[in-house]
Amino acid sequence: MSKWYLNPGSNDDIVLSTRIRLARNLSSLPFQSRMTPEQKKELCQKVRAALQGVNLGDNKLSFIEMNSLSDTQRLALVETHTISPEFMDSPENKLLVLSKDEDISIMVGEEDHIRIQVMRSGLELNDALKTADLLDNVLDETLDYAFSEQLGFLTACPTNLGTGLRASVMLHLPALEQAGAINQLASTISKLGLTIRGTYGEGSDAKGAQYQISNQITLGISEEMAVQNLQSMVEQVIAQEKNARKAVWPQPMRLEDIVWRSLGLLQNARMISGKEAEELLSYLRLGVSMGILPGVTVQTLNGLSTKIGAGALCRDSKKNLSPDERDEKRAAVLRQELQTAGRT
Amino acid sequence: MSKWYLNPGSNDDIVLSTRIRLARNLSSLPFQSRMTPEQKKELCQKVRAALQGVNLGDNKLSFIEMNSLSDTQRLALVETHTISPEFMDSPENKLLVLSKDEDISIMVGEEDHIRIQVMRSGLELNDALKTADLLDNVLDETLDYAFSEQLGFLTACPTNLGTGLRASVMLHLPALEQAGAINQLASTISKLGLTIRGTYGEGSDAKGAQYQISNQITLGISEEMAVQNLQSMVEQVIAQEKNARKAVWPQPMRLEDIVWRSLGLLQNARMISGKEAEELLSYLRLGVSMGILPGVTVQTLNGLSTKIGAGALCRDSKKNLSPDERDEKRAAVLRQELQTAGRT
Repeated sequence: MSKWYLNPGSNDDIVLSTRIRLARNLSSLPFQSRMTPEQKKELCQKVRAALQGVNLGDNKLSFIEMNSLSDTQRLALVETHTISPEFMDSPENKLLVLSKDEDISIMVGEEDHIRIQVMRSGLELNDALKTADLLDNVLDETLDYAFSEQLGFLTACPTNLGTGLRASVMLHLPALEQAGAINQLASTISKLGLTIRGTYGEGSDAKGAQYQISNQITLGISEEMAVQNLQSMVEQVIAQEKNARKAVWPQPMRLEDIVWRSLGLLQNARMISGKEAEELLSYLRLGVSMGILPGVTVQTLNGLSTKIGAGALCRDSKKNLSPDERDEKRAAVLRQELQTAGRT
Repeated sequence: MSKWYLNPGSNDDIVLSTRIRLARNLSSLPFQSRMTPEQKKELCQKVRAALQGVNLGDNKLSFIEMNSLSDTQRLALVETHTISPEFMDSPENKLLVLSKDEDISIMVGEEDHIRIQVMRSGLELNDALKTADLLDNVLDETLDYAFSEQLGFLTACPTNLGTGLRASVMLHLPALEQAGAINQLASTISKLGLTIRGTYGEGSDAKGAQYQISNQITLGISEEMAVQNLQSMVEQVIAQEKNARKAVWPQPMRLEDIVWRSLGLLQNARMISGKEAEELLSYLRLGVSMGILPGVTVQTLNGLSTKIGAGALCRDSKKNLSPDERDEKRAAVLRQELQTAGRT
């Protein structure tokens, strides 16, 4: 039981996670939106077969029919970013290939035929890309990828055409957010072919000061160059966030007060909404990162985030909870998991 | 070291304290506002001499010249209601007679020559009156009280004329406050010759939902009758508050959430204002009263209230603290004193 989000990673005091996603399609089948149910089944079988030989050591792959999961199980997978929100709906003839550590998830039957996704804790773009490429090569051995010498990989949406690569880094930027600096940052970033967004991707709000920076351009640029651009921009943002923390909270006692109060509420609340929990956990993360809070690590917080979403709470309670019941259960989980936080 | 506020008392889940105050003047001296410094000194000496023979067992009396105390020491005495705010100013030729348990305080040189004050935890009007009468009798033996057969005791302000008695009960009324029922209560109470006010007496705001109910009428009514009227009104208010608690917080979990969150903030804050602390302690008191919160008693809370006022914090730190320093020190005291609160 060593899930990827419980591992340490580079700069994991500010970078929550790294994700590499490769979009691939088979030339022998029409794009997803035009496929018949039979063709969808055929696709799933082909991917399953192609992955039989892959060797990932202990990190074994499981093959999960999406329609074998309950609504709340699928929602919980969205909450951990294991699958996309789009992949959750209409689960017929969709296959999820998931590794034991949950760092590898291959969605078969999303917008593209195949979406290879690799997650890492902290800023680990190259390591994630290496694993994604390994899986890509295994699939490429037996599957006939839709590929054009001129355009590269063909994808359902033209924004993915070329490398089919989306590299994303999730950052915790409470000080830049507090300073109102996110819009300025977004404008700078967009000039470099990158984009910054809220937690669940395009158009979504930031949750607990978590922002995702990812590459926009997939055409006319190599995988390596795209990843390198992103890496250097993320490093700059990390430095900016660290500077902003000194400017936004010049009096250490004021920040300590906010962090400890957040812990006090999380350790004692009997009912708590998801939104409030994320906001308070954001301050805890800041406190851990700034060396204020003993007895808790960013890994604890990473693990906790996977347990307090509406889907995860219903899944773990094995029943559909009302909003009030969810708030009670969420508060109970937080009290339990943060029991020793703050103690030296 | 058993201060009066650390003792249990009747209905002490809702009644914080009972106070009896008797106003007395000597016929041989003009009223306080017209006295020369020499006459004030003479008054202090007379009271001192008159109290030499009193026997209160272990609860020995101390004689404290008010000008021997620092500003913060005097302020701390106001915060615990040991002296009146008026008695704090112009400390020359004012004498405080204070018992070891701090339940008896005799102010010499307040608005009236002598103000005998007796405090009790909970609703203990008769017991407090008994002790006040004992002291009154001792003083009466050697001093020549200003007394008229027709009017009773003569006082500086006509509102005290007659018995010179002010009997007050401090109640914790969070539910009636929350329900917006205090104004209605005030109107009912005033028709019965009683009054309800905020924490530090007339014109002051309620602090942490604490309200003082006291008698208004001193003329044409016996001490016993005044106290009995107050007793029966307070008993009605206690019943009303208990009913209101069920109506205001019909869902136990919502109230538990408020109580535990208050504890979480008090146990973790690094800076806290006096106002916020009193508000949160009010919820703690409610939690103790409702059986929600283990590991803490109303006596703990009573004791705590005497330690977190601006005067008490400066006195105990032995220096003048800035507002920020006071907020830090107050937070530290609260963390220390509430360490085990909430634990079973």
